[in-house]
Amino acid sequence: MRPITPWEPFAEVQEQVLHGEGAFLVTADAAGRPNAMTIGWLQLGTVWGRPVAQVLVRPSRYTHGLLASGEFVVAVPLGRMGEELAFCGSRSGRDVDKFRELRLRSAPGTAVRVPLLPDCAIAYECRVVARAELRPEGILDEGIRAKYYARGDLHTLFLGEVLATWDLRE
Amino acid sequence: MRPITPWEPFAEVQEQVLHGEGAFLVTADAAGRPNAMTIGWLQLGTVWGRPVAQVLVRPSRYTHGLLASGEFVVAVPLGRMGEELAFCGSRSGRDVDKFRELRLRSAPGTAVRVPLLPDCAIAYECRVVARAELRPEGILDEGIRAKYYARGDLHTLFLGEVLATWDLRE
Repeated sequence: MRPITPWEPFAEVQEQVLHGEGAFLVTADAAGRPNAMTIGWLQLGTVWGRPVAQVLVRPSRYTHGLLASGEFVVAVPLGRMGEELAFCGSRSGRDVDKFRELRLRSAPGTAVRVPLLPDCAIAYECRVVARAELRPEGILDEGIRAKYYARGDLHTLFLGEVLATWDLRE
Repeated sequence: MRPITPWEPFAEVQEQVLHGEGAFLVTADAAGRPNAMTIGWLQLGTVWGRPVAQVLVRPSRYTHGLLASGEFVVAVPLGRMGEELAFCGSRSGRDVDKFRELRLRSAPGTAVRVPLLPDCAIAYECRVVARAELRPEGILDEGIRAKYYARGDLHTLFLGEVLATWDLRE
């Protein structure tokens, strides 16, 4: 596993997220039990002079509560793990231990208590430094409102400082 | 001027933003008069299945009101235009017509009514699809709170769908 800049794999990661099968958003509960949900959206960039990865999670999701721990890992399997992504995108960690069920391999994070997924290609270790709530009046595009928010449950934006980025293929 | 994907110049753009002199956030008022502020922060990625550029602007800024037009351009001068960036970062468009003062060259946007800056290297044409307000309880990092928010004026996050991305050097 090789340390890289957060920008290095960006094009590949966005292709996987936008046109591929998504990525894992990994969190852990107070006892250290990990969970993974599937995300199809991810932003990356600079805020407050720091590299920041931003994920959007609906309040109804199990992961939303786990993010109160203040840490997450975005693990990106470039062109692999389609079955695991499908499972993690359709089941809730409230009902099933996804790591056990899928026999997901994990490795300790180096900067956070959330594990990495060594079978992925890229991992971003993040600490939540800020969050912001989407509110109905903030959704300005009617297509987005109709497609994603007909039932409310508007996403929270979690801004995570990227503490470490890894290429796990090497 | 060559159309590119939003991801293509990301590493260069982030280096300019994070370690360099920043980028221009260009907007226009109701009469079409353009303005540019200097930004040192920029996020890019996928949200709602669309490419999104996210900028943060304090409510006190002249640009904050102009963003009500629903459109902006992020114009990135890789390693150039340091003087112009310094000027646009220290003066308000309320007091001075920056385009006239700096004799900034402009070219019509192709997807928005905000102009491009043909002397920049990269330009993202964006339509604001959502916004979210940072609130005091959402700032979880004490260092960020102390350094950026001692006087309040918490940033609004503007999420702009990227309608076109240009390499202006060719």
